[in-house]
Amino acid sequence: MNNTVTILGCGSALPTREHFPSAQMLELRDKQFMIDCGEGAQIRIRQYGVKTNRLNHIFISHLHGDHWFGLIGLLSSFGMLMRTADLHIHAHPDLEKMLKPMLDYCCADMPYRICFEPINPNAHELIYEDRSTLVYSLPLKHRVPSCGFLFQEKERERHIIREMIDAYEIPIHQIAKIKQGADYVLPDGRIIENSRLTTPPTPSIRYAYCSDTAYSEKLLPWIEGVDCLYHEATYDDSMQARAKETMHCTARQAATIAQKAQVGQLIIGHYSARHSDKTTLLKEAKEVFDNTVLAKDGACFTINSKITK
Amino acid sequence: MNNTVTILGCGSALPTREHFPSAQMLELRDKQFMIDCGEGAQIRIRQYGVKTNRLNHIFISHLHGDHWFGLIGLLSSFGMLMRTADLHIHAHPDLEKMLKPMLDYCCADMPYRICFEPINPNAHELIYEDRSTLVYSLPLKHRVPSCGFLFQEKERERHIIREMIDAYEIPIHQIAKIKQGADYVLPDGRIIENSRLTTPPTPSIRYAYCSDTAYSEKLLPWIEGVDCLYHEATYDDSMQARAKETMHCTARQAATIAQKAQVGQLIIGHYSARHSDKTTLLKEAKEVFDNTVLAKDGACFTINSKITK
Repeated sequence: MNNTVTILGCGSALPTREHFPSAQMLELRDKQFMIDCGEGAQIRIRQYGVKTNRLNHIFISHLHGDHWFGLIGLLSSFGMLMRTADLHIHAHPDLEKMLKPMLDYCCADMPYRICFEPINPNAHELIYEDRSTLVYSLPLKHRVPSCGFLFQEKERERHIIREMIDAYEIPIHQIAKIKQGADYVLPDGRIIENSRLTTPPTPSIRYAYCSDTAYSEKLLPWIEGVDCLYHEATYDDSMQARAKETMHCTARQAATIAQKAQVGQLIIGHYSARHSDKTTLLKEAKEVFDNTVLAKDGACFTINSKITK
Repeated sequence: MNNTVTILGCGSALPTREHFPSAQMLELRDKQFMIDCGEGAQIRIRQYGVKTNRLNHIFISHLHGDHWFGLIGLLSSFGMLMRTADLHIHAHPDLEKMLKPMLDYCCADMPYRICFEPINPNAHELIYEDRSTLVYSLPLKHRVPSCGFLFQEKERERHIIREMIDAYEIPIHQIAKIKQGADYVLPDGRIIENSRLTTPPTPSIRYAYCSDTAYSEKLLPWIEGVDCLYHEATYDDSMQARAKETMHCTARQAATIAQKAQVGQLIIGHYSARHSDKTTLLKEAKEVFDNTVLAKDGACFTINSKITK
């Protein structure tokens, strides 16, 4: 089972020929999460053949239009496609106020329910949990309240060594406990330590999304050691002043965060429309953090564990 | 100077790999008009290199999302691009109610003004006039109040015959009047009839946009003899029942309107996502009205006068 992130759009405020505004689809174990939903996200979903049947949660980082203007179209189309499952939208509470009049007018009687889940963009807290995943908000530093997201797989079960089951004649009803770390007690009272019966679990994946934000070291403890970090890199070094003024980052700053947080891989995106050629952005980022790749609309990145690499 | 219509999107409710939702840009003499603004219209504008510096009027046919969900993105981008000219949006009055909360939140302090010009979708009336153009509303038959638009160039001036200016020594200050149809009175009192001094004006162009609508012969007198008609053709013959139920047209019905109204050319569009291959649509339309062409995202059609062809 692959853990992947598919870039539906990695442009910034103004769309370009190449880049739609921010939107991506994260697949983590068997779950699907959408992060931001810029205009045209539903068009990219179709162009790239992305399935959405397991999508029940959308996370919106902040209320600049390039991060949510695609929501109304997506929600409306889900209605026409006869979606029935609840859809949860995690966002700043003001989003509901703006979408509500349109939903009431254009999307009355939809066969599914939209549940707005308000986020407090100033708090670093658990905002979502299911059997296998935790999602935390990451307060960012931007012109409007803004937060990134940390997606974290819960720890997986240990792998039981098949030969040991046979050797100690371990009954099936004990296996779940052993996978969770328990020792096995033989009928004669002898204890077989868990470490002899199992191998360590497949490492859990952690993916962080940080856009839009000025350079902020406050992020470091929250994203330390994540397997993959998507960080905005709106400008190159020559636009440093503009980055500061608009509270965005240069590619070098994004890479500095990646390097200080010792992440596994860095994906940069949210490119300014001024940078039609991305070579400088990549070069400047790689000077600080070598394992950097450029986001690209339509690219699907596999998120590998730092540990198994 | 070309009169053209550029298709920014000719899909219907659900976008496809090929087709964005409804939007088009009409160039009539030196004026630019946008008709409908489905999601992604601003993206298409960039992809196709369409300039918008002369765009001051947008006409929205009705409030189904696939005809206006692209507005907020376009309006917001115009603000970022430092547009200063007023932008007029001609639409059902409810549009303002839905856009207002978003504009107030996301687009405060824009350097230009948005003027909502309410349309009465039940009336066939003049809704816009400038020195060279008239625009009329065309009430359509749809599930929600809906109207098409007739764009009509005002009659142009007659062409003065250069040789006659010399022969009768016509002074310059008389020429404008003669172009407008006046006779010329010689100093000795003789009258030279206008028809000897001029040739007929270049024919004025008329372009009609009819989407979304069920088959409606009520349209015929309003669009009779237009040079070019864009008419929705959501379904092929096999989907006739569905067309009726959803108050859309088949390609054959669109062609019947074109044939009965004796238009110059028919462009069909607003294809259902079911019709990935458009050959049947074109074939069925051509059986009734031969001069039919298929709309295609990115296509730019020259609108020729019926008379000079």
